[in-house]
Amino acid sequence: MANSVSGDSVVDRVVRVIEAFPEGADALQLSELAERAGLPLSTAHRLVRQLAGHGLLELGAGGHVRLGLRFWELVNRNSPTLALRQAAMPFMEDIQQVLKQNVNLGVLEGWEVLFVERLSRPGSVVNRARVAGRMPLHISSAGMALMAYQPRGLQADYLEQFDDPEGKVTADVVRHRLAEAVQLGYAQLAGVVDPETWGIAVPVLDAKKRAVAALGVVVPLAEVRLQALVPALQTAARGIGRQLGDVRGFRSTESV
Amino acid sequence: MANSVSGDSVVDRVVRVIEAFPEGADALQLSELAERAGLPLSTAHRLVRQLAGHGLLELGAGGHVRLGLRFWELVNRNSPTLALRQAAMPFMEDIQQVLKQNVNLGVLEGWEVLFVERLSRPGSVVNRARVAGRMPLHISSAGMALMAYQPRGLQADYLEQFDDPEGKVTADVVRHRLAEAVQLGYAQLAGVVDPETWGIAVPVLDAKKRAVAALGVVVPLAEVRLQALVPALQTAARGIGRQLGDVRGFRSTESV
Repeated sequence: MANSVSGDSVVDRVVRVIEAFPEGADALQLSELAERAGLPLSTAHRLVRQLAGHGLLELGAGGHVRLGLRFWELVNRNSPTLALRQAAMPFMEDIQQVLKQNVNLGVLEGWEVLFVERLSRPGSVVNRARVAGRMPLHISSAGMALMAYQPRGLQADYLEQFDDPEGKVTADVVRHRLAEAVQLGYAQLAGVVDPETWGIAVPVLDAKKRAVAALGVVVPLAEVRLQALVPALQTAARGIGRQLGDVRGFRSTESV
Repeated sequence: MANSVSGDSVVDRVVRVIEAFPEGADALQLSELAERAGLPLSTAHRLVRQLAGHGLLELGAGGHVRLGLRFWELVNRNSPTLALRQAAMPFMEDIQQVLKQNVNLGVLEGWEVLFVERLSRPGSVVNRARVAGRMPLHISSAGMALMAYQPRGLQADYLEQFDDPEGKVTADVVRHRLAEAVQLGYAQLAGVVDPETWGIAVPVLDAKKRAVAALGVVVPLAEVRLQALVPALQTAARGIGRQLGDVRGFRSTESV
């Protein structure tokens, strides 16, 4: 394996090129890509040309570089989210039709929630949960629903390292919210991300009653009717969990 | 760049590892992965460990390897399909609600249609168009809608190389279908993929009247009412096209 002076391998540098692309659909100038990847321009250029030769990147006019459709295809045709998304989509559509609001599905990744699917409608309220976007657990109802149904050891680790960069929330407040979510069976956060919206999420549980995903909605504060929302979400989440139980190769059932 | 005896570079070998994962959610045994990638076991093992160190692959118990959630995230948070999917989703949901059938969205990749999004409902008819799945153009109404609205040169290249492996369709038949699709404004294929279904698709056109995508439905033969289906699809496709026109960074508007 060829290592550069700095000791990183070709694989490391390829990963840095891929990681350099920001959230959104923007292409990067080659020089910008090299800078974001922390690579000399000549190295970045060589890697980009090689990856473009396989269709993993696309080199446009004017030196623009973007991730290639072939790359998207390779990582989506066999993806850890495929089984989860396929199980969840019909239920998410049901929820969306009944509630006429944004519905999202998130999984735990480190101390963040990673949103793997989202359905939104024109005219529905703002929902910052983008597909393949992340949010800190403590400002997302989906994040709270996920963490509330994790093993105690993991929760303890989370709370121990917890530090709100905005200084608004303490670990004790988060601990209280997690306990409340377990007691109620759902997590709720009113006006945290956007002052006009309420996030409500329920866990999708596996056979060990661990949350493998969270199903959430974001609704305008004025329209919240928990009596209607929560049973609908819980019913859908149970349906998704049952569906997943039948799926061979689903992540949570194999990764123990 | 370190090249192996066979002359391929580390980048080539990394790409072969990624390409080795088949369609579906299945993990691979390390030995199977090495074989599919055409790499010595020791090389495959080293690459897998390096990629797993970055979260791009996940090494499970028993030597199972799968694509990592981090990989999915990186390629989906900045993806050539993001703008298209975001523009299309609300319209696809409208179509799905009105027709209660599978709706899919495909783009042209080589001489195949690559499906970038799909909505299906429990109880809806079989639809082989998987997300990130491909189909030959000539057996898919979405494929025909895409090719019908391409520049003449590209169409000529396609027809020249055309060869139906099943020997059922000739280039002349395909040429006729393409002309018909342009005349009608939509492509239709009855009972080609499944004997019980009818595929109908319309192009999503850019400012140059080139198809950047195709929006299609798959409905049971007995339920087809073209008078209702086609205008609904065409209206939705125009909406998607208009939406895309406003999106900076959309593929088709930059890649010329």
